[in-house]
Amino acid sequence: MRAVVCKQASLEVLERPDPVPGAGQVLIDVLRCGICGSDLHARHHCDEMAAVALEAGYDGFMRSDQAVVFGHEFCGEIVEHGPGCRRTHAAGTAVVALPLLRQGTEIHGIGLSAHAPGAYAEQLLVQESLAVAVPNGLSPELAALTEPMAVAWHAVRRGDVKKRTVAIVIGCGPIGLSVICMLKARGVRTVIASDFSRGRRALAAQCGADVVIDPAEGSPYASAAEHGHLATVPAALDAAVGAMDKLQRLPVPWHHVWRAAEALGAATPKSPVIFECVGVPGVIDEIIASAPLFSRVVVVGVCMGVDQIRPAMAINKEIDLRFVVGYTPVEFRDTLHMLAEGKVNAAPLLTGVVGLDGVEHAFAALADPDAQAKILIEPKSSATL
Amino acid sequence: MRAVVCKQASLEVLERPDPVPGAGQVLIDVLRCGICGSDLHARHHCDEMAAVALEAGYDGFMRSDQAVVFGHEFCGEIVEHGPGCRRTHAAGTAVVALPLLRQGTEIHGIGLSAHAPGAYAEQLLVQESLAVAVPNGLSPELAALTEPMAVAWHAVRRGDVKKRTVAIVIGCGPIGLSVICMLKARGVRTVIASDFSRGRRALAAQCGADVVIDPAEGSPYASAAEHGHLATVPAALDAAVGAMDKLQRLPVPWHHVWRAAEALGAATPKSPVIFECVGVPGVIDEIIASAPLFSRVVVVGVCMGVDQIRPAMAINKEIDLRFVVGYTPVEFRDTLHMLAEGKVNAAPLLTGVVGLDGVEHAFAALADPDAQAKILIEPKSSATL
Repeated sequence: MRAVVCKQASLEVLERPDPVPGAGQVLIDVLRCGICGSDLHARHHCDEMAAVALEAGYDGFMRSDQAVVFGHEFCGEIVEHGPGCRRTHAAGTAVVALPLLRQGTEIHGIGLSAHAPGAYAEQLLVQESLAVAVPNGLSPELAALTEPMAVAWHAVRRGDVKKRTVAIVIGCGPIGLSVICMLKARGVRTVIASDFSRGRRALAAQCGADVVIDPAEGSPYASAAEHGHLATVPAALDAAVGAMDKLQRLPVPWHHVWRAAEALGAATPKSPVIFECVGVPGVIDEIIASAPLFSRVVVVGVCMGVDQIRPAMAINKEIDLRFVVGYTPVEFRDTLHMLAEGKVNAAPLLTGVVGLDGVEHAFAALADPDAQAKILIEPKSSATL
Repeated sequence: MRAVVCKQASLEVLERPDPVPGAGQVLIDVLRCGICGSDLHARHHCDEMAAVALEAGYDGFMRSDQAVVFGHEFCGEIVEHGPGCRRTHAAGTAVVALPLLRQGTEIHGIGLSAHAPGAYAEQLLVQESLAVAVPNGLSPELAALTEPMAVAWHAVRRGDVKKRTVAIVIGCGPIGLSVICMLKARGVRTVIASDFSRGRRALAAQCGADVVIDPAEGSPYASAAEHGHLATVPAALDAAVGAMDKLQRLPVPWHHVWRAAEALGAATPKSPVIFECVGVPGVIDEIIASAPLFSRVVVVGVCMGVDQIRPAMAINKEIDLRFVVGYTPVEFRDTLHMLAEGKVNAAPLLTGVVGLDGVEHAFAALADPDAQAKILIEPKSSATL
């Protein structure tokens, strides 16, 4: 079969042996596979990423001198079951799958490990237990978005976002756009999106962002006050002391005043949730410096290397930094069903389709944020951008 | 009246004019006042602290060229009510108070601002609305611990710690010890404390820590596995994929398998809560590197200046960093009552008492972690260490 192979940062379409499913694995024909920002990053910086993974205990992340097939955002059709499969889904069933593959006693990340080739190829192997049937009627294009949308769904859930929470999305690349889609799918009323790129701001609006900001011209945090957020330490002190002063004047017994203070929410100021979807050094500290007090910051953008923050500023503002990665199997499955039931509008993310021979050019095209968001690979096609 | 005045980093006992209560303020005679680590730090580094406060919108933090009276952890007796007071508490009542003072339209931090002199003095002013009567029978020594214990209570609440949560306290200075006390008061079964100092480890045990670790000899995170925490990325992958494999073999319909996965908690791995009570550059990143996956880190120690973290490592482990400061009025009041009702055992923190003339020496003594934890000032006494 044909596959795009990455080695020493170069991409090449090569003929590779047809994969043979092991115990509990199924072979699938790839219908569509998304190109992920992680793939672009891993092409040039995988050794650095592998070092971090190794320190976290995982030794199987790709290295630059290995031949690796990218592709962990895919939709395919079952061709063959390996030994010991339960055959939950018959051959011919369209499925998506969590990109994890058992190899002996080890589990590897499909599409980012030399031990688990990905879906920039005509075929790949997945675990039967991690495959989910694509519900009737959902196109392979949208089904292939399950993986990145599951990342966003997990981030939204970890952010503990309620409908009345003001959500601010910093960076409208594919992950930021997915987060916007999922926030709206969750029913969040006020989603503020920020990006320097005009094209991405337009996509953010299509994905449902209620307010779209060019950070060169305005601040996504500027409307904090009108949403009841406290912007400065004096504002917070004034709210707390002012509440106590007022309560003291109430004609009720003193111990009731304290319970009233609690009920009035002196203890629970309103918090916005900010999604960091840029992943570049300095962005986290910039958010800490600019955000309203008590902000919850969900860090979805992967910033490699060492970054600098000022803990004293985060402390002064009682900032929460919640770092997130991946999703649970249940979140993955729920995301697919949200897509299939039309609860989430992910179509604006899709900006292009290429065949295997068009991948190298697609990587280059994705460097221009104004032109592209999510490009899908259709291995059987000869499409180019 | 006599007061300890800090200016240009030197401490001097001086005669100052008797304070006169303004509208809504009461004058109190100081019974006891704790020496806080913030005071030690502010003596030499207040300009840096003031710069951070200013960036967060508060311009009233002390500067090195101002004459400032420290002291924000105090217990006193009401002497006089200012105009417009509700006289909730009669003269002679023992009170503690949130260390915030209204001056015109501004609110200042008592004991850390030139605009709100603190309790290293015979008398000070507090807001009537922020004063709480000390319940009968609670000693002024323990009542004076209300403020630091409220900081710890707030940290424990922000850490969302349940009785079965494993809590790890890094650093057993006064704040770390207070956190240990409050974790035990909350009924947390397993509190692991870590400090390089033998004296502080002994105090940690007295405060109720169940396991006490010398980090030069062992790791406070080592027992992660026996508490059900996942230490590495492969362990997490194995847990998730293993659960899905097992579920697939169940003789139930496939859609039930997904609900079972959810119920089995594939989505909610066990998280320890780690309290960072050191406040020195590098500690946060060290915790991120050593902690089990999905750890919640409550940052209570105030680290000034720029610190370095590796976001990719925090992302790989899904770390939560929750920065905390202060407490709400309700938490402050509840802390006092927990102390008065004997629900929290804070006595081990008290290691010394000095008069105003002994403060300078007490500052020096606090540099030795083996000898001292919390030193109280008793302005009417001539005690020395």
